[in-house]
Amino acid sequence: MRLPMARPEEVDIALVGIPFDGGATNRTGARHGPREIRNQSSLVRRVHHVTGLSPFDRIRAGDCGDAPINPLDLMASLESIEAFYAEIRAAGARPLTAGGDHLTTLPILRALAKQAPVGLVQFDAHSDTYDSFFGSRYNHGTPFRRAIEEGLVDPRRMIQIGIRGAISDAANYDFARTAGVRIVFIEEFMARGVADVMAEARAIIGDKPTYLSFDIDALDPSFAPGTGTPEIGGMSSREAQAMIRLMGGAHLIGADLVEVSPPLDPSGLTALTGATLMFELLCVMAGG
Amino acid sequence: MRLPMARPEEVDIALVGIPFDGGATNRTGARHGPREIRNQSSLVRRVHHVTGLSPFDRIRAGDCGDAPINPLDLMASLESIEAFYAEIRAAGARPLTAGGDHLTTLPILRALAKQAPVGLVQFDAHSDTYDSFFGSRYNHGTPFRRAIEEGLVDPRRMIQIGIRGAISDAANYDFARTAGVRIVFIEEFMARGVADVMAEARAIIGDKPTYLSFDIDALDPSFAPGTGTPEIGGMSSREAQAMIRLMGGAHLIGADLVEVSPPLDPSGLTALTGATLMFELLCVMAGG
Amino acid sequence: MRLPMARPEEVDIALVGIPFDGGATNRTGARHGPREIRNQSSLVRRVHHVTGLSPFDRIRAGDCGDAPINPLDLMASLESIEAFYAEIRAAGARPLTAGGDHLTTLPILRALAKQAPVGLVQFDAHSDTYDSFFGSRYNHGTPFRRAIEEGLVDPRRMIQIGIRGAISDAANYDFARTAGVRIVFIEEFMARGVADVMAEARAIIGDKPTYLSFDIDALDPSFAPGTGTPEIGGMSSREAQAMIRLMGGAHLIGADLVEVSPPLDPSGLTALTGATLMFELLCVMAGG
Amino acid sequence: MRLPMARPEEVDIALVGIPFDGGATNRTGARHGPREIRNQSSLVRRVHHVTGLSPFDRIRAGDCGDAPINPLDLMASLESIEAFYAEIRAAGARPLTAGGDHLTTLPILRALAKQAPVGLVQFDAHSDTYDSFFGSRYNHGTPFRRAIEEGLVDPRRMIQIGIRGAISDAANYDFARTAGVRIVFIEEFMARGVADVMAEARAIIGDKPTYLSFDIDALDPSFAPGTGTPEIGGMSSREAQAMIRLMGGAHLIGADLVEVSPPLDPSGLTALTGATLMFELLCVMAGG
Amino acid sequence: MRLPMARPEEVDIALVGIPFDGGATNRTGARHGPREIRNQSSLVRRVHHVTGLSPFDRIRAGDCGDAPINPLDLMASLESIEAFYAEIRAAGARPLTAGGDHLTTLPILRALAKQAPVGLVQFDAHSDTYDSFFGSRYNHGTPFRRAIEEGLVDPRRMIQIGIRGAISDAANYDFARTAGVRIVFIEEFMARGVADVMAEARAIIGDKPTYLSFDIDALDPSFAPGTGTPEIGGMSSREAQAMIRLMGGAHLIGADLVEVSPPLDPSGLTALTGATLMFELLCVMAGG
Amino acid sequence: MRLPMARPEEVDIALVGIPFDGGATNRTGARHGPREIRNQSSLVRRVHHVTGLSPFDRIRAGDCGDAPINPLDLMASLESIEAFYAEIRAAGARPLTAGGDHLTTLPILRALAKQAPVGLVQFDAHSDTYDSFFGSRYNHGTPFRRAIEEGLVDPRRMIQIGIRGAISDAANYDFARTAGVRIVFIEEFMARGVADVMAEARAIIGDKPTYLSFDIDALDPSFAPGTGTPEIGGMSSREAQAMIRLMGGAHLIGADLVEVSPPLDPSGLTALTGATLMFELLCVMAGG
Repeated sequence: MRLPMARPEEVDIALVGIPFDGGATNRTGARHGPREIRNQSSLVRRVHHVTGLSPFDRIRAGDCGDAPINPLDLMASLESIEAFYAEIRAAGARPLTAGGDHLTTLPILRALAKQAPVGLVQFDAHSDTYDSFFGSRYNHGTPFRRAIEEGLVDPRRMIQIGIRGAISDAANYDFARTAGVRIVFIEEFMARGVADVMAEARAIIGDKPTYLSFDIDALDPSFAPGTGTPEIGGMSSREAQAMIRLMGGAHLIGADLVEVSPPLDPSGLTALTGATLMFELLCVMAGG
Repeated sequence: MRLPMARPEEVDIALVGIPFDGGATNRTGARHGPREIRNQSSLVRRVHHVTGLSPFDRIRAGDCGDAPINPLDLMASLESIEAFYAEIRAAGARPLTAGGDHLTTLPILRALAKQAPVGLVQFDAHSDTYDSFFGSRYNHGTPFRRAIEEGLVDPRRMIQIGIRGAISDAANYDFARTAGVRIVFIEEFMARGVADVMAEARAIIGDKPTYLSFDIDALDPSFAPGTGTPEIGGMSSREAQAMIRLMGGAHLIGADLVEVSPPLDPSGLTALTGATLMFELLCVMAGG
Repeated sequence: MRLPMARPEEVDIALVGIPFDGGATNRTGARHGPREIRNQSSLVRRVHHVTGLSPFDRIRAGDCGDAPINPLDLMASLESIEAFYAEIRAAGARPLTAGGDHLTTLPILRALAKQAPVGLVQFDAHSDTYDSFFGSRYNHGTPFRRAIEEGLVDPRRMIQIGIRGAISDAANYDFARTAGVRIVFIEEFMARGVADVMAEARAIIGDKPTYLSFDIDALDPSFAPGTGTPEIGGMSSREAQAMIRLMGGAHLIGADLVEVSPPLDPSGLTALTGATLMFELLCVMAGG
Repeated sequence: MRLPMARPEEVDIALVGIPFDGGATNRTGARHGPREIRNQSSLVRRVHHVTGLSPFDRIRAGDCGDAPINPLDLMASLESIEAFYAEIRAAGARPLTAGGDHLTTLPILRALAKQAPVGLVQFDAHSDTYDSFFGSRYNHGTPFRRAIEEGLVDPRRMIQIGIRGAISDAANYDFARTAGVRIVFIEEFMARGVADVMAEARAIIGDKPTYLSFDIDALDPSFAPGTGTPEIGGMSSREAQAMIRLMGGAHLIGADLVEVSPPLDPSGLTALTGATLMFELLCVMAGG
Repeated sequence: MRLPMARPEEVDIALVGIPFDGGATNRTGARHGPREIRNQSSLVRRVHHVTGLSPFDRIRAGDCGDAPINPLDLMASLESIEAFYAEIRAAGARPLTAGGDHLTTLPILRALAKQAPVGLVQFDAHSDTYDSFFGSRYNHGTPFRRAIEEGLVDPRRMIQIGIRGAISDAANYDFARTAGVRIVFIEEFMARGVADVMAEARAIIGDKPTYLSFDIDALDPSFAPGTGTPEIGGMSSREAQAMIRLMGGAHLIGADLVEVSPPLDPSGLTALTGATLMFELLCVMAGG
Repeated sequence: MRLPMARPEEVDIALVGIPFDGGATNRTGARHGPREIRNQSSLVRRVHHVTGLSPFDRIRAGDCGDAPINPLDLMASLESIEAFYAEIRAAGARPLTAGGDHLTTLPILRALAKQAPVGLVQFDAHSDTYDSFFGSRYNHGTPFRRAIEEGLVDPRRMIQIGIRGAISDAANYDFARTAGVRIVFIEEFMARGVADVMAEARAIIGDKPTYLSFDIDALDPSFAPGTGTPEIGGMSSREAQAMIRLMGGAHLIGADLVEVSPPLDPSGLTALTGATLMFELLCVMAGG
């Protein structure tokens, strides 16, 4: 969005990239997401066409660069990412992040939600609440299990929208359901529509602090082919935009857009979609 | 789907590839469909997220390899394909096929429906009931005319869904209509919706033996660009999945997914869609 | 569409290409649109599947080649394009054009609407009614402002459908609104649907002479990725086809399909979509 | 090369396309070669930079369109192609052809060399002198065996340059060697260099009528990736240009450039290379 | 190269981008060259492997951003580019530029060579000394004619290396030859080799101030496919690197690398090659 | 190469894939190398065209599948790979491996060279003898340092050919040089030629057990664009083939071909090159 580079203390909303995909188990490439989303964001302008308002008139936003990571050390990366976001939080800014794979949401939540668990709105094809994968407890299939276990997210204030796709075990959703997470499968979403589902989402999170995490694979791969684990039968870009707008007025402490994988995105459409959805998120976080 | 290789007598449902596109008249490449669908199927897992059931728990499924073909001899290929499927039928297995161009459905029907004509549910942009093309009676525009003429398909138990696109002659649909085939153009489909159209389809085929043939060009090319004769304005993947699920309980003697053309599919999306729809077909054929 | 080359006086409807994108400010490539649309149009056949009619049975149509342009001289190109269309008009033919960037609509209107302002139906993601851009009054963001100022278009008989995307200034739509142009944003379009919006469009243009301009970026980039300034959240191909068909019976003096950019369209889908929509436009212009 | 369309009797050299790849056994697509070579040839200009001469100043050249083929009937296509070239020959023109797979050279030779066998210079990775393939005697691995057997080519006046790649049987080259064909493997070519090999080629063909056939897979796939059976370790474009120029003064009755497969050529480089080499061939055929 | 952003007065060598291709007459896209070259330059490290030296240890280098341009106004862009480089010169820095089309070299020379004509070493497939093109005197086919006419370049101290490809008129090279420019066609280059040609180049330019301009189409398109007017039969990357290194010790007042066109470069190879050659140029300009 | 699947004890030469790229620090994707190399190897036939011999006539070769890895645990993967190769060795077979990133050579050497250090011929753009990278001692920049330190490779019997590209520190080659490794930079290679360099390589390794490791980035990216860290100015495929053939008669205990990255290889050329070079390696290992 042609934003100036900034330090956290200079902004209200800090745009951050996390060039890390060490949590991906199959097709990698999300590490290149931040760069390509920045490239495509040069096509995005300043004023929202529906509201007629520009976020840049109401809050200070800036690009705070990439979080430090180590491509060869997953656990060290989780720590350095958390430390980076702790600084942002200490500076009083709210982060809006371009991932990276979905595991990167975990260290963000560790930095933002240490004091008290937050609500979570998750747009995704996958629940990402596995216990472990390949014997590892930290990968892009487990972040929200860990976040619930660590007390970062209140599962009764958590909703997952767009879940779908064949799974490896019928028990995959048991943890989330038992914990109280509301799972809206894509079939229910299609039957009820955007407005109804988002009304429920708003009721679930209430007025308290909430984080929003948008995995680009929530979208159908015709809209976002460039991602590691695409699942057909997803949302349209239209629906995604409408849902984000219906988050207006929520108490958002941060948001992210993850799993854009440029090597799998020859046309650049996925990165453009990611950049546009980040603009929508920015408008909502800016209060209008 | 990471299935083991198997012989027909070891399985209830035999997955088969037909690497043949000698029936294509314009853009070829469907001969490479089976290989790429197998590649992409490694992204598909075991349990259906809606039913919570795995087909692999209820039936034995295996990959029986590719049907033998001769890329230089269309008529010989029709014979060798038929013989291959006759063996599968003799072994008591039902075939689920990855094409190949749409002509390959003809030898399958010859092997499966010699005793009595079967019902047919065809998802397609094109009726494929030409009499001949370039002077040839055997190509990917004629299989269902031949199948009706040969008594393999009962035209009054046959329905085509998704037909659209400019045609070369206004009389193109006359044969099918006269024979009693129900043609649901895409405009009617859009107006009535998935549930209503599929209720009609189920009424037409009834409880008797039926074959299901899914030409990937039934989908809009935004969902399945990699096919020889794409037509804009087609179905979405969502709709295709919903329709296949509504085939649950039908008496299916076999099914195919044809016309995936990898050379025209740089992102792999079409092959992924084909693999996922084959998983949906497998679930339906497995009885749930 | 495998049409013969023709001179304007030999046809009722003249298909023309304008290989010019000198009005584009960011990503160029629309200059190659006409060639690639011609290539893809070889997949389009003669008879419309809904009406069962062929435009070629009712009117004479031919490919009148490309309008002369100078890639290095924007103003000279505007003049040579206008002169080319003036000849077509003098010969009694109506033009159906493959662009080119959207600025190319201006010289067409100059040739066709000198005597009296015409009505205009514009499908587009962008209003294209800027006053100037980079200090220039003639580029692909300004053609309809110029057309209104020059008295070529009657703004009270003008409607824009599909407008969306972040803008650089909240006042961007003020000129069009003040002049009386009806702007249907994509959100209103989605809420009301194709039939309702097109009924309004027909009421606005009435029976008097009207031009139709279709910017391919009106479509969602999942349907038409190959264009210079894609905006997510657009129309589907289905909706576009339905809307064009609802123009049947309008008094169309010409139409264009612009902003197809082959270098940004590796799969060819955008050019195929453009060619198919041009066939729909041809059917409507041919009177059925 | 922006040439006018022409009838054979209007030209000295007739450029012809053969959109046929029914002789290909693995990866098809060469049927689209003529169209894409024409597209890319718009980048080629009129005057050769080494000689300073333009072929168009010395001979009449024109695009005589595509030979008629039937994509579903190989044998019928061989006949219709032969008939088309027989007309060209009867009109006194010499053909310069864009293929098509390599089998298409056979009907050309049948039309041109019925009276007496001609010499042949073949640039190729493969000898194409199999007896049969998949039981078929007519495919892109057999044309030169058939041509020798039918007395169209004098094997002692025949040379193959650039042969390489693993073969299915050690006896593959026996027919050609026994018949007297000179095979220059790529290793010998590299060791001796362009000038030495071409001196031998000129000695072999002498002053008598000779045909030149250039399979684009003679080039290394880094120069020409878009072909059905690429073999690494081939010639460079530089070397190909130098060799064609060294054919100057030979008695060429025709030439072809085959096996350009656009679906396998996303960058268009192979078609551009094909178009440029055809310009080189045209210059040589034009006598300078 | 992960360089810091800098103002001209802070550096000895100023890296600059010119995102302008308004001088291109056929395939555009070079306007996106600077961004993609910067992206790919992140793969380039600090120390030259042959010399074992790092330019960053000997001079101060920084990225001074993009020159201001107006995509809709060629003449205004020439002026704003010239003004930008005049500032760099006034600050005492030498510019190393990523284009842009080749016309952008003209305003650079106007800024650097106003006092006295400079020598020029040009690597290129095209002479770029047309008088005009499409009636325009300022486009990417004319910069060096203008530079000679304006007294910016001394034609007797100018050499062009790698020239090739069909031309539109046999007189195309007359101006350059008459003015005293040394043209080394690719055939002469291949016959003599890198060392011999570069020895001549060094003799021609002598010790006096010289500019180096590298058009990426000097390379064969197998090494650099992403450019507007590729010509087969060019140099290899190896040869280009060797030639640049042989410029060591020359009195270089600036250099550029132009005509990288990312929309035509799906694999990114051309931009990577451009970035690597710019590193070679930087090493030579830094004195070793 | 259409080889049968086999267990190690059934073969003399075991073809193995290692789908692991956890050692890559920038662009990943080599984990998909084995699958795509297998796909492309279907284009490779049985008999070498120079020798006229088939390796399959002299030794038993089979595809032993993929080594087990954990994409989320680098150290565990090193152990499981080593164990897999220890089994192959115990069965008396020699492994020929398709990587994977270059780190995967380390566990292979641990399995094969525990008793005594072996010689090593390494074709590569990079020395891969860093001490550590991002604080990690195990990544694709360090395998040969570790192998020397662990006594698996005798550095005085080790040669690296093709090294080039900017480095991060002038001291990068110090470890290898001090240890006695012979480094042949690409410039020396170009000056001396294939035969001379390979004669030296054979003298260095002598008759004792030797391993051959071929990093595909030894090739110029025009021949092998699909790799994580391409460096321009590399070898040609021709040269690579010639060098491998000159290894005939050496005492090879195993070989690998690594760093083919399919997501970066849209045309498939890199995988085809990898498959062909593996056939050359197989021929050499088979003794002819």
